[in-house]
Amino acid sequence: MKAAVLHSFDEKLEKPEFVRYEDVPDPKIERPNDVVVRIGGAGVCRTDLHIIEGIWRSKVDVKLPYIMGHENAGWVEAVGKGVTSVKVGDPVICHPLVTSGHCLACRRGNDMHATESSFPGINADGGYAEYLLTGERALIRLPKTLAPKDVAPYTDAGLTAYRAAKKASRHLLPGEYAVCIGAGGLGHIGIQVLKALCAAEIIVVDRSPTALQLAKECGAHHVVQADGNELQAVLDLTGGHGAEAVIDFVGEGDSIRIGIAMTRNAGAYYIVGYGGKIDLPTIDMITTEKTIVGNLVGTYPELVELMALADRGLVHLATREYRLRDANQALHDLHHGKIKGRAVLIP
Amino acid sequence: MKAAVLHSFDEKLEKPEFVRYEDVPDPKIERPNDVVVRIGGAGVCRTDLHIIEGIWRSKVDVKLPYIMGHENAGWVEAVGKGVTSVKVGDPVICHPLVTSGHCLACRRGNDMHATESSFPGINADGGYAEYLLTGERALIRLPKTLAPKDVAPYTDAGLTAYRAAKKASRHLLPGEYAVCIGAGGLGHIGIQVLKALCAAEIIVVDRSPTALQLAKECGAHHVVQADGNELQAVLDLTGGHGAEAVIDFVGEGDSIRIGIAMTRNAGAYYIVGYGGKIDLPTIDMITTEKTIVGNLVGTYPELVELMALADRGLVHLATREYRLRDANQALHDLHHGKIKGRAVLIP
Amino acid sequence: MKAAVLHSFDEKLEKPEFVRYEDVPDPKIERPNDVVVRIGGAGVCRTDLHIIEGIWRSKVDVKLPYIMGHENAGWVEAVGKGVTSVKVGDPVICHPLVTSGHCLACRRGNDMHATESSFPGINADGGYAEYLLTGERALIRLPKTLAPKDVAPYTDAGLTAYRAAKKASRHLLPGEYAVCIGAGGLGHIGIQVLKALCAAEIIVVDRSPTALQLAKECGAHHVVQADGNELQAVLDLTGGHGAEAVIDFVGEGDSIRIGIAMTRNAGAYYIVGYGGKIDLPTIDMITTEKTIVGNLVGTYPELVELMALADRGLVHLATREYRLRDANQALHDLHHGKIKGRAVLIP
Amino acid sequence: MKAAVLHSFDEKLEKPEFVRYEDVPDPKIERPNDVVVRIGGAGVCRTDLHIIEGIWRSKVDVKLPYIMGHENAGWVEAVGKGVTSVKVGDPVICHPLVTSGHCLACRRGNDMHATESSFPGINADGGYAEYLLTGERALIRLPKTLAPKDVAPYTDAGLTAYRAAKKASRHLLPGEYAVCIGAGGLGHIGIQVLKALCAAEIIVVDRSPTALQLAKECGAHHVVQADGNELQAVLDLTGGHGAEAVIDFVGEGDSIRIGIAMTRNAGAYYIVGYGGKIDLPTIDMITTEKTIVGNLVGTYPELVELMALADRGLVHLATREYRLRDANQALHDLHHGKIKGRAVLIP
Repeated sequence: MKAAVLHSFDEKLEKPEFVRYEDVPDPKIERPNDVVVRIGGAGVCRTDLHIIEGIWRSKVDVKLPYIMGHENAGWVEAVGKGVTSVKVGDPVICHPLVTSGHCLACRRGNDMHATESSFPGINADGGYAEYLLTGERALIRLPKTLAPKDVAPYTDAGLTAYRAAKKASRHLLPGEYAVCIGAGGLGHIGIQVLKALCAAEIIVVDRSPTALQLAKECGAHHVVQADGNELQAVLDLTGGHGAEAVIDFVGEGDSIRIGIAMTRNAGAYYIVGYGGKIDLPTIDMITTEKTIVGNLVGTYPELVELMALADRGLVHLATREYRLRDANQALHDLHHGKIKGRAVLIP
Repeated sequence: MKAAVLHSFDEKLEKPEFVRYEDVPDPKIERPNDVVVRIGGAGVCRTDLHIIEGIWRSKVDVKLPYIMGHENAGWVEAVGKGVTSVKVGDPVICHPLVTSGHCLACRRGNDMHATESSFPGINADGGYAEYLLTGERALIRLPKTLAPKDVAPYTDAGLTAYRAAKKASRHLLPGEYAVCIGAGGLGHIGIQVLKALCAAEIIVVDRSPTALQLAKECGAHHVVQADGNELQAVLDLTGGHGAEAVIDFVGEGDSIRIGIAMTRNAGAYYIVGYGGKIDLPTIDMITTEKTIVGNLVGTYPELVELMALADRGLVHLATREYRLRDANQALHDLHHGKIKGRAVLIP
Repeated sequence: MKAAVLHSFDEKLEKPEFVRYEDVPDPKIERPNDVVVRIGGAGVCRTDLHIIEGIWRSKVDVKLPYIMGHENAGWVEAVGKGVTSVKVGDPVICHPLVTSGHCLACRRGNDMHATESSFPGINADGGYAEYLLTGERALIRLPKTLAPKDVAPYTDAGLTAYRAAKKASRHLLPGEYAVCIGAGGLGHIGIQVLKALCAAEIIVVDRSPTALQLAKECGAHHVVQADGNELQAVLDLTGGHGAEAVIDFVGEGDSIRIGIAMTRNAGAYYIVGYGGKIDLPTIDMITTEKTIVGNLVGTYPELVELMALADRGLVHLATREYRLRDANQALHDLHHGKIKGRAVLIP
Repeated sequence: MKAAVLHSFDEKLEKPEFVRYEDVPDPKIERPNDVVVRIGGAGVCRTDLHIIEGIWRSKVDVKLPYIMGHENAGWVEAVGKGVTSVKVGDPVICHPLVTSGHCLACRRGNDMHATESSFPGINADGGYAEYLLTGERALIRLPKTLAPKDVAPYTDAGLTAYRAAKKASRHLLPGEYAVCIGAGGLGHIGIQVLKALCAAEIIVVDRSPTALQLAKECGAHHVVQADGNELQAVLDLTGGHGAEAVIDFVGEGDSIRIGIAMTRNAGAYYIVGYGGKIDLPTIDMITTEKTIVGNLVGTYPELVELMALADRGLVHLATREYRLRDANQALHDLHHGKIKGRAVLIP
């Protein structure tokens, strides 16, 4: 099959060609619950840029050459002998983790904390390709209203944003405020999820006017240009107190310090983006009683919930399609902030 | 009346006399809900040392000279005209915050997040004295089983430990682990509260063998000497995963880094002690999905709950009594780690 | 002042004149926290009909003659000496319970479970009058966007519907269903609250086409005519499983049996309306693991939350105004199902 | 193999021989995830008596002759080709439900609400036999401290009691009360679970002095003889308010009416036992805001949690052993209230 393969890291993201479009062997069914999916769409994620930079080398076992692409949807192409819940031809979206389902984390629904798992596109071959090897437990059948290429980015970008926004929605009461820092691939979904799941007033902070425009279309009640005065702007909008929930889809540079400062006492700051550092005296956590919440990708049931929102039109993904052979263009456009919403590779 | 008055800061805690035992005017009832309490016991807290060091100057409005002492219990001595829920002679314990009860935080039970409040001993005259001015809403009548001098430290040390341990107990399931870092004035109460409120196995980490001995008496299932290998020791006790909850009663030096590292993925690290800094890459919060929880003193209803535990003997406070005139001795003994449990000033 | 006074019960609701419009003495400030409110609007509630029928005689201490009206809003007319949080002339809405705030239920925000309280319009003189005696702790200042006569029914009808719908919203996930039985004075608010607080699909069941029309305007996704086949209709809409939450605003006749049957296994049936009986074998509760939830009026903080929804236009109250002197007409119209939304008495 | 087989119903439980001890074919592995367990112990449950009475005929598909026994533990005897998480010889306890794990309920950990499942001993052959056919997903490996025959009744009696007590423990605060009605096979475990998971004061109500003695040994703080005055006795113990949680392990006769009456306003009544009826005016649910909670057997993760409690000695099961051939004796002894704790059939 054809695939866009990563052969070497590039710490400064300077090369014109990050990945090489080439022929590789087709994936094969080996175990009873294996499933091969024909890719309909594979989302292009900032994490892919971080992988190219080599940031993930110390976190997971990435061996080059390998195929990136952890946001995948398509159609079932082949199944192992033990597979009963999907059949060849079914349109499916892939939860990013492939697990056996036996550990306690899986039994409680938290596949992403499984004691053993693989994460195609991160530590195994992913979906920047014609076919993907995954497992039965990772698959959700799509309703007819949703095409694989239109929903692929929900599996990681969408699902991570969903999980953080859902956590925030559990404590956000009417009359309270939520701030989203960043209205890109994840942020624009987070805004819509907050709007669907609670009645907090939503304030969106971003440097880019295009992103703020997208934020408004997604239902933000207030938008704030990140121009150095964003902290004061948010305090002014919230009666001087800050917001009960701040979801930071950036997690780099100044956004962390400012994000925590924008959080109201007794409120929660949700980290989704990464790259930067938390640097905070403990006394500030004590006197304010704030909470800092890390966020990983959501659970399988949460992906089902997100598909229900998408199916009913409560969440809409802004995507821009590129051919698989144009993967480098997509990655460069993402790197240079030229994408509104999310890039998706299609066959 | 007599009081132990703070006249000047001492950044290195070097002076033999931190406070001066002297005559000051008696507090007076001025507003309808004012109450004067005759002090039966006033707890001596590490925060008092931090106040003497001047750490709190930037956080609250401390004007010298003033009277420290924010852990107070005693008997009602005089009441304003609007007071109906206590009467002269009642034995009472004082929630540390004095509030009007009108703001939304108070209406939801969170007096410590009141938009307006005073905190005797922190930003108003406290209980290192014969009498204390407080408000009706701060008072809880004591059952006959509990003497004021024996329970005074519950109001802040106890209540803060209770709140953090209660938060942890809400998610700690049988088969899971809780680590307490520090088994001093707060920690030894936190251990007992955890034991009363959930069935997690409790691991206590401390540098001091005396503290670890106290931890065992309080019900710790495992104790670990903090000798540089404590992280590995905790990982070994928890199957290599770390603990689902880590409560850090120290919050200084290495305890923060180690405390977060001891926390299992998807678990929570509770900060109670302070003085140090959190210094953590955001990627580590993302991949582990940990939560960092700040902890302030508990609510009024939580102090009622803690008194119920004390009344039934489920929590016991280790105290050492000093006369009010010996306040400096108590403060120095605390500073030099000579107190098992909590020092209390008595008349 | 003028008031509409109840002088005698009428078990079958047959009399043309339930209440008598007459002169009564003005209420007077007696205690430091008393407040007199000039009524701008007083909601007319099905509970008022139940009071006239005598149903409440065994539940609370109702002594005739007295003034009904437990949904009140207006302007502060006079205040006791201890009142600091409102001043004469302020537009206010009245939480229905008047409490001292000292008991533990009040301290936790649950004023309606106070150990001591009065409930004007139920066990003390209410707001079918020019003036009402209440207490400082019951009052919420209104924003300029909301006129007293337009919001009065929120204090009981709205607040009860809000509380039940909020409870349901805490567990309703995307992809799940909520049924509202009854789209009258309470139901039409409950629908809007559900819509604001969660993403469940909302199914409304009512006998009246007018009510179903109102339900659609309020955002119901599906409406079902209660014609004897409503249970099957709801099962058909929910894949044969029933709804994860059923809120029964009727609570009489067949609605209870059918409402429980419409509830999915592991789901919850919320009772708001009353008059009928639950009659259910315990084995049916065991095998289905359903929960039956009683619902009283909401808390003071919940009324603040509801006002935030109203202020932002997320909840709108359908009202029909009657002059205070026409109270009997309003009560009869309510009794005969002629009111869309809620009747309100204005001066 | 040998088994104790049910051939006919007996509505009045009058026959000397409910089941027949006889030879039947051995169960066989048919599907990849099938597992055959050699029975070490099979609990004898009141539900078995209800099955013999025919009560369950309308609830599940019971075809005679079949083998009862839904509380099973033993050793893995044979495994299907897809089984990876257990191996022949492993000591195991069997979660009562056998599921594929694909539906959303299973994915969220709630196997007992699976859309498709079998329940050996209820709607398939159970463990009153030498061997049992079950599925890989139902099995938990036992620690060395726990022998199969000593823990078998945890799988249903224990797990159901655990789930109800755990639900109650989530809202029971220090200073509050829990009532257990019935201290038999389930009740005596429920008491110990409550004691392990929260600090509520525990009151146990039972007709039998033997059961009350067992309750005391299990840690009950107060015991009340059910002699007609038990409601008043509980009110007296709880300051006239009733208990915040009442767990009814009887669910027959007067226990329901009295159990609900013993529940404090805003509290919860948990139904575990069955046979009787709830008969309650809706107005009583409204004015008191009580909740009635149905309880089914717990989840697989909850059985793991319960095993952790048993492993640490926090819960102990009182059992009385009978040979499999003496199954009728065990059933008759249970029927006549002669068993303290739980009967277990051993090979």
